[in-house]
Amino acid sequence: MRAGDVRTLARAISTVENRAPGWSELLKALFPHSGKARVLGLTGPPGAGKSTLVDQLARFYRRGNDENNRTVGIIAVDPTSPYTGGAILGDRIRMQEHFSDPGIYIRSMATRGSLGGLARTTGDVATVLDASGRDLIMIETVGVGQDEVDIVRLADVTILILVPGMGDDVQTIKAGIMEIADIFVINKSDRDGADNVEREIHTLQSLAVRHDGWTPPIVKTVASEGTGVKELAEAIANYESYLQKNNLALTKSAENWQERLVEMLRDTMLEKARTQVGDGNLARLAVEVAEHKLDPYTVVEEIAAKVGKS
Amino acid sequence: MRAGDVRTLARAISTVENRAPGWSELLKALFPHSGKARVLGLTGPPGAGKSTLVDQLARFYRRGNDENNRTVGIIAVDPTSPYTGGAILGDRIRMQEHFSDPGIYIRSMATRGSLGGLARTTGDVATVLDASGRDLIMIETVGVGQDEVDIVRLADVTILILVPGMGDDVQTIKAGIMEIADIFVINKSDRDGADNVEREIHTLQSLAVRHDGWTPPIVKTVASEGTGVKELAEAIANYESYLQKNNLALTKSAENWQERLVEMLRDTMLEKARTQVGDGNLARLAVEVAEHKLDPYTVVEEIAAKVGKS
Repeated sequence: MRAGDVRTLARAISTVENRAPGWSELLKALFPHSGKARVLGLTGPPGAGKSTLVDQLARFYRRGNDENNRTVGIIAVDPTSPYTGGAILGDRIRMQEHFSDPGIYIRSMATRGSLGGLARTTGDVATVLDASGRDLIMIETVGVGQDEVDIVRLADVTILILVPGMGDDVQTIKAGIMEIADIFVINKSDRDGADNVEREIHTLQSLAVRHDGWTPPIVKTVASEGTGVKELAEAIANYESYLQKNNLALTKSAENWQERLVEMLRDTMLEKARTQVGDGNLARLAVEVAEHKLDPYTVVEEIAAKVGKS
Repeated sequence: MRAGDVRTLARAISTVENRAPGWSELLKALFPHSGKARVLGLTGPPGAGKSTLVDQLARFYRRGNDENNRTVGIIAVDPTSPYTGGAILGDRIRMQEHFSDPGIYIRSMATRGSLGGLARTTGDVATVLDASGRDLIMIETVGVGQDEVDIVRLADVTILILVPGMGDDVQTIKAGIMEIADIFVINKSDRDGADNVEREIHTLQSLAVRHDGWTPPIVKTVASEGTGVKELAEAIANYESYLQKNNLALTKSAENWQERLVEMLRDTMLEKARTQVGDGNLARLAVEVAEHKLDPYTVVEEIAAKVGKS
């Protein structure tokens, strides 16, 4: 895989994504080879044009505009489909388009039910891509909820994509994800209302001061025409320099890893507890709670108390 | 609180929401008094007009249209604001509007960071409202991601609110949440495209068969004018009868409780592990992982192995 074989890469990602036998050993073996890639996280509400922008950015880097001629890995996360669990049609078309350039690798991921820890799996897949030698990893996800916050938190650079005229809830959306955006993009900026969105971002920025002293720039794009893509690449490079110059890269990475360790601990500990109680017993207890014969708080305490004891 | 005192109710909810001292004992004491309320879950993408619809539905029930004159509790969950953590302005205005009717109680909730377990806290708040004697609890939330799926899963009746012309991502949104909607609402149905949305729902329904045999009806509303609210209330009543007639209420509740027990176990086990390792140690380990001196998979295994041992 580290020699560049794409099929082996795809198989390694599937192993990790599906938690197939050996996934944990694979990650332990790959981790020491990771840590070299730059990770970009891109999110925004449905219809903001994220996929188009990610495609344009990947093409830009690959078309000789990047002095290091970096290879690109794209992880397209779709947290809105918790049950269907498959890649959406659009992604398959995208993959075909890039098929001619082995320097771009695209992988779609969907949520695996409520116990998924989608952010965790996404992080693990990014580790695999990183270890495989991809220089630049883009994680794109649809939405502005907690899932997306958790996912973009994996990134070195977080980009929030907004569009003019997002309706009544634009205020809510921006307030939520405001603190984690390192760069704002106003896509479809040829539409009416682009200046309004820009003004609102400025207003929100004046209210919140980042502890790293960075003021997130606002880049206007029309992704479908490629407008503003160069400027976005520059904004990304500027932020990377800023992190480097102020020795913030390690601090940011350590903060992210602390969150990720907690998430991993959460999943691992739950597995221990489930093994302890057994799924059949849990189903029986659930019926008794539904009938109000048992209270759930005591049930959980009693299970937890037994873990690791015997 | 069970005598109807609203201030005590508010205090009890805050205790549970903030995990203030005694929250667990409070829930254990209240749980036996819960289980009588009917819980409605309403979700949909930003801008679908959920709050307006919930308000109209609450008014409808309170204006003598409900033969049992049921009292209403509304929990407005805002998962889009993980960092601001406060109630949004709109909710405060809504609370004032209903101030004259003590039969309606509104409470806003926001996400508490990535470790929140927002669905869990929402479930606990619903238990408090239920135990306080509210007959009908409406949980409304903005969005169609995993958070929202987890939250509406708490409900006896799940209502998905769509609008005409939601843009390119409408297909994705509907595919994701399709399986959990017991009733579809097309709000703002006087707009162009309402028939399109209806057709798309029908198409998706023809692809997925529910294991309980229920075919979710589609109700068209214009919430701002009160149109279709009566029909929605009827659809809710129909589904309730269907559950009753086929003895599905307990099955559904037991399934929900199984998910909730797992979530609770997850949180409780994580707490045990965090206590075991200590937050200071965890921060130090995170730095070593960020520096790639340690691999995170081994770190987590080692912590987990120690829990409950000593």
